[in-house]
Amino acid sequence: MTSETIARLTGANLVGHAERSAGTPFAGPNPRTGEAGRLAVAEATTDEVAEAAREAARAAPTLAALPLDRRAQLLQTVADALDADGEAIKAIADEETALGEARLTTELARTSNQLRLFAEVVADGRFLEATIDPPDPDRIPPRPDLRRQLLPLGPVAVFGASNFPLAFSVAGGDTASALAAGCPVVVKAHPSHPATSERTARAMRQALADAGAPAGTLGLLQGEGVEVGAALVQAPEIAAVGFTGSHAGGRALHDLAAARPTPIPVYAEMGSVNPLFVTQGALAARGDDIADGFLQSMTMGTGQFCTKPGVVVLPDSAEAQSLATRLAEAAATHQGGPLLNERIATSLRRQLDVTRTLDGVEVLADGIVETGDGYAARPTVLRVTAQRFLAEPQLAAEHFGPVAVLVVGDEEERLAVARSLEGQLTAAVHAEADEHDGLDELMAILTDRVGRIVFDGYPTGVAVTHAMHHGGPYPATTSPLHTSVGSTAIRRFLRPVAYQSAPRELLPPALRDDNPLGIPRQVDGAWTSAPL
Amino acid sequence: MTSETIARLTGANLVGHAERSAGTPFAGPNPRTGEAGRLAVAEATTDEVAEAAREAARAAPTLAALPLDRRAQLLQTVADALDADGEAIKAIADEETALGEARLTTELARTSNQLRLFAEVVADGRFLEATIDPPDPDRIPPRPDLRRQLLPLGPVAVFGASNFPLAFSVAGGDTASALAAGCPVVVKAHPSHPATSERTARAMRQALADAGAPAGTLGLLQGEGVEVGAALVQAPEIAAVGFTGSHAGGRALHDLAAARPTPIPVYAEMGSVNPLFVTQGALAARGDDIADGFLQSMTMGTGQFCTKPGVVVLPDSAEAQSLATRLAEAAATHQGGPLLNERIATSLRRQLDVTRTLDGVEVLADGIVETGDGYAARPTVLRVTAQRFLAEPQLAAEHFGPVAVLVVGDEEERLAVARSLEGQLTAAVHAEADEHDGLDELMAILTDRVGRIVFDGYPTGVAVTHAMHHGGPYPATTSPLHTSVGSTAIRRFLRPVAYQSAPRELLPPALRDDNPLGIPRQVDGAWTSAPL
Repeated sequence: MTSETIARLTGANLVGHAERSAGTPFAGPNPRTGEAGRLAVAEATTDEVAEAAREAARAAPTLAALPLDRRAQLLQTVADALDADGEAIKAIADEETALGEARLTTELARTSNQLRLFAEVVADGRFLEATIDPPDPDRIPPRPDLRRQLLPLGPVAVFGASNFPLAFSVAGGDTASALAAGCPVVVKAHPSHPATSERTARAMRQALADAGAPAGTLGLLQGEGVEVGAALVQAPEIAAVGFTGSHAGGRALHDLAAARPTPIPVYAEMGSVNPLFVTQGALAARGDDIADGFLQSMTMGTGQFCTKPGVVVLPDSAEAQSLATRLAEAAATHQGGPLLNERIATSLRRQLDVTRTLDGVEVLADGIVETGDGYAARPTVLRVTAQRFLAEPQLAAEHFGPVAVLVVGDEEERLAVARSLEGQLTAAVHAEADEHDGLDELMAILTDRVGRIVFDGYPTGVAVTHAMHHGGPYPATTSPLHTSVGSTAIRRFLRPVAYQSAPRELLPPALRDDNPLGIPRQVDGAWTSAPL
Repeated sequence: MTSETIARLTGANLVGHAERSAGTPFAGPNPRTGEAGRLAVAEATTDEVAEAAREAARAAPTLAALPLDRRAQLLQTVADALDADGEAIKAIADEETALGEARLTTELARTSNQLRLFAEVVADGRFLEATIDPPDPDRIPPRPDLRRQLLPLGPVAVFGASNFPLAFSVAGGDTASALAAGCPVVVKAHPSHPATSERTARAMRQALADAGAPAGTLGLLQGEGVEVGAALVQAPEIAAVGFTGSHAGGRALHDLAAARPTPIPVYAEMGSVNPLFVTQGALAARGDDIADGFLQSMTMGTGQFCTKPGVVVLPDSAEAQSLATRLAEAAATHQGGPLLNERIATSLRRQLDVTRTLDGVEVLADGIVETGDGYAARPTVLRVTAQRFLAEPQLAAEHFGPVAVLVVGDEEERLAVARSLEGQLTAAVHAEADEHDGLDELMAILTDRVGRIVFDGYPTGVAVTHAMHHGGPYPATTSPLHTSVGSTAIRRFLRPVAYQSAPRELLPPALRDDNPLGIPRQVDGAWTSAPL
């Protein structure tokens, strides 16, 4: 099936109604063999990038003007189209990423369900934050009739991530939330899965057209180097950027966007080490379970999750030694799995060459990183004292792959390790009920540094829901106010507009007295769906 | 009274519990005389800036941990203290700004009422966005128990504005919303009113201490040049910046903040020309009223409002000529008023030297800008064709003072003028009811470029309310998602944290099953104040 489906792809950049392929060809990877992928993909030219941004800007007013129910329908249509084309998408994605059928099936369901969640958010209408304040001449200053709602920010550039070819790529959370906000999207596909990106984009573009969205609602740009993305972020029509990937990449885009004549927000999620803190009580009660659960979490997707727990902070006890032994033994016999591409494999090997030989580092499990015929890795487990960890900042850096660092120390040292952490997407705490009273200081430290705190569990697996926060202080993200997963991700792409003393016929529907959309609105401070 | 009250001030920087004045002294202006102000103020040293940021960081956890009702009480106490000290504050502010008793009385009431609005927002608790999603194992991916709320971002640097010594300065909207969010504030006082700033800060600091807030909740730094502000924005403890002022200043702070090792958000409101569009029907029906209302709006605070309407777009008609004549005559006999300081007066005079002599510019009213003994200006009214306006970008730049540019053209030209506009805080439209049908294109253009659209009125006077949006696309602000006035301004200083599968006793009160705070929460997608 893959051969046939890949043969149908063109490797072109999808720009408005057109296909463009004037640029130099390149190919994605085949992680299982180390050979080049079978699709010749055209690196987008500067002109093609500019055209994609212009087409998105041209689509913006039409897309923004679609009634909410049509916009919700559009998201549902896209979700259905992805499911309908799922077998082909998964087959291509598996060839390009080696993530396997089971994982890709889950990821596809997550991707289409995410679009459906945003369809619900749009249909509900509360995200518009329609707010009406009746006039009050007695206030200081006097209050006129004021009505406010959120509107789409404008065309959004979305960068696909290597490690989630579906859920954080062309049809991923950034795209879903931007479309839900009413913003056209130009995706810069990740060069690790260009064929998956094209197949996904074609399914989405057909569905968008069927649902009546204008051409330019979704564009796709291919590129192997950094030039295409840089040009896209600098295109004057682009109003915001969604990115999931490395710190170097996210920071570079942030800096480019901040230096534009008109700066724009960059929502970059750049990963973290997601520390796991285990108390003595938890070790004594369920150390083996924690060892097993942790290994499963750190090896999920061959450790290439931004939420992979990479540091485990433990007391200096016999039970911690048992956990380490069990983890090391299981890691030594773990078959490992594929890494996504040569760059990731080479970087991980080089990083490990340094960190495993640092002073005081014990190698408990010696994973192999293959960079020849195919890229693969088996789990590596290192151990250091808290004092050594605090002295070697390289141990606190993310290893993008199945690598964990156990850090052992007394309570004060463990709190010092927590305090030394930079901004994190997540932290996890394993503790017994009778120990909770003693966790105040750790909780305060983590709350300051972390976007999501997980109890007696593991941070991999990010539920797509209202209460999710997938974000965190820098360097976990460039924008600590926002999440890239969950229903509030839509806010990143909306801006308020207020109407003062507007005649009814010039008000947008969401703000009219009779509430023709039937949405919840904040009227004089209280939420109601009733007309004025 | 002023002599006595100024004599009681020290000109020191207020840092934690301490007063620091190691730096070079400077003085504020006396705009009525052109002489130096009577208070010798100590420019904050680099060490003092660093100390203020550290003291704010030290206060942060204690301030954040205050229960919501205590935080609300604290804001009310500060509001009451400002009112109680109002006579002294106004007397000093009048000497430093020459804005006059009436205006300062209104501004003080606005300032304390703004603090009271935020006390209501805090007590209501909805701003925390407490969100609870019960577990659902059947979802893909499975949904654990997830609970999310907003928490204070950390110490905020606030820059006082020259033109609002109370409402956008030490006790202004940025400070009120940051304290409401639970963030300590370090204010960089504007050098145009250092004594007002000190008096205000002392009243607030006493009230904060009385209400049990930690030292470091409000710091005050004085500085004449850009160095103090630059050092403050670069202090590692500072988590966000609120600024109201010039484009050059706001952009410089934005760029500094973006280049930090840890970038932080800068909410800079940088003014705009706030165009007013008047239709032929409105001119015919009420041209004289519009001329009079416009003159009052453009001369309010001697034209030194960020919402001052600076451009009026008119049809090429006899009625537009009548409006121009009436406006010119009234402007010629208008007494004008004081400008805030020598820099503003000199800049305005230099700018007018250029713009009034541009090709095609008619000078309808020739205001004088005094830069010698006292700074004052009378209204200047210029007129150009739309074609000349479009050809001369300098005419679309803000004149900070009582200057207006009338732009005359046919309908297509007027729409072209609208399209040529950069991001604006406001635009106003004057039209008759039977013309509303023809306004679709103008409305679409303005909605794209403007934060607030005012109908049949004037943009000066920014109500402090839920539906207000005082913001707009760049260059009106550096952050189009946010407002600096109104209850949603609090969001700028909050970030989400999610708790996954947390034991009850480790959850913050807002997220516990029994809802001990009794606040509205989003539970499984629906808002309720009921316990789980």
